[in-house]
Amino acid sequence: MSDGRAGRRRGRPASAERVAGEPDARERILSSARTEFAERGYDKASVRAIARGAEVDAALVHHYFGTKEQVFTAAVEGAFAPAMGLPDLLLSGSREEWGEQLVGYIVRIWENALTREPLLAIVRSAMNNETAAAIFRALVTRRMVNRVAAKLDVPDAKLRVELAIAQMVGTAMLRYVIKLEPLASMPPEELVERLGPVVQRHLTG
Amino acid sequence: MSDGRAGRRRGRPASAERVAGEPDARERILSSARTEFAERGYDKASVRAIARGAEVDAALVHHYFGTKEQVFTAAVEGAFAPAMGLPDLLLSGSREEWGEQLVGYIVRIWENALTREPLLAIVRSAMNNETAAAIFRALVTRRMVNRVAAKLDVPDAKLRVELAIAQMVGTAMLRYVIKLEPLASMPPEELVERLGPVVQRHLTG
Repeated sequence: MSDGRAGRRRGRPASAERVAGEPDARERILSSARTEFAERGYDKASVRAIARGAEVDAALVHHYFGTKEQVFTAAVEGAFAPAMGLPDLLLSGSREEWGEQLVGYIVRIWENALTREPLLAIVRSAMNNETAAAIFRALVTRRMVNRVAAKLDVPDAKLRVELAIAQMVGTAMLRYVIKLEPLASMPPEELVERLGPVVQRHLTG
Repeated sequence: MSDGRAGRRRGRPASAERVAGEPDARERILSSARTEFAERGYDKASVRAIARGAEVDAALVHHYFGTKEQVFTAAVEGAFAPAMGLPDLLLSGSREEWGEQLVGYIVRIWENALTREPLLAIVRSAMNNETAAAIFRALVTRRMVNRVAAKLDVPDAKLRVELAIAQMVGTAMLRYVIKLEPLASMPPEELVERLGPVVQRHLTG
């Protein structure tokens, strides 16, 4: 992760070439926030360091996002953005295909380091800090559990969705972080074949 | 976790009442190590702080365990000890009951904070540090995956065990750390009923 910063000196103040309010300043702040939360965790991350990484003044971070908690929320929302199409995707297929569709969609997000790393960074922060866990919980509930459960439309829908998410989150941890073999080297298509029926069972079995 | 230390001053040197080599010194060091790794993570944990928490000299920690890496390995082995009976348990039941037996056994370990917290502490460290991840990986492979896979005795046994572990690890994270509802408040018996057939399918389906 720190590779992306090579050539920038962390202690350097907001540089003159970077003008506050420049169209991409908001995006640079979010990107710096994801790096900072990933490298130092929620507790140790600071708005000052996020500003430095984005080459803006800390006041601009506060202006755009507010507190550290709010910067984190925005970073989490950004990391989840690629997964936001999921509930809509479910509308398009027949009920018996949801498991494989869901798993296929999630595995594609994972297999791309650009979309995987921000998600892992957030899970790491949530594992280690109660505030980060609460933000993560609220977002997963609102954006994933409630929306997919609404489509399922059965009494225990939320629980079903959560147990399916548990299978996926656990698989991501063991495959990409702990790197248990043979799971870590398994081709993604085979992973989808294996997990599709399990998630299907959680949702509609 | 820090409650256990109430009344002890962290900066205090090994006290005179605590004699090095005393029968329980080794256990005190391990207990202090689990607290230190849980509170500060693998990276920031220090042998010096572990020694302070155990009220012994740092030299005694090195004498018993060696390096910080070796103290961590011993702490992980200790945290896994309650789960070590699993493969033997599998021998005792019929193949069709393995899923429910396994899940029942693991959920009992989780529901007791004394056995759950050391496991969560280790997963947290492994999520955030490559050395800790490698130690966790080696131990899970040797003590869980290989042993359960040997009993399954099918070509893709290791993968099956790992996907079952993924379901369980993910469920633990969402239930005890992220605290997603309704999963977090679900009675343990109901959790076993839900997950038993899923794990059974992973293993023998």
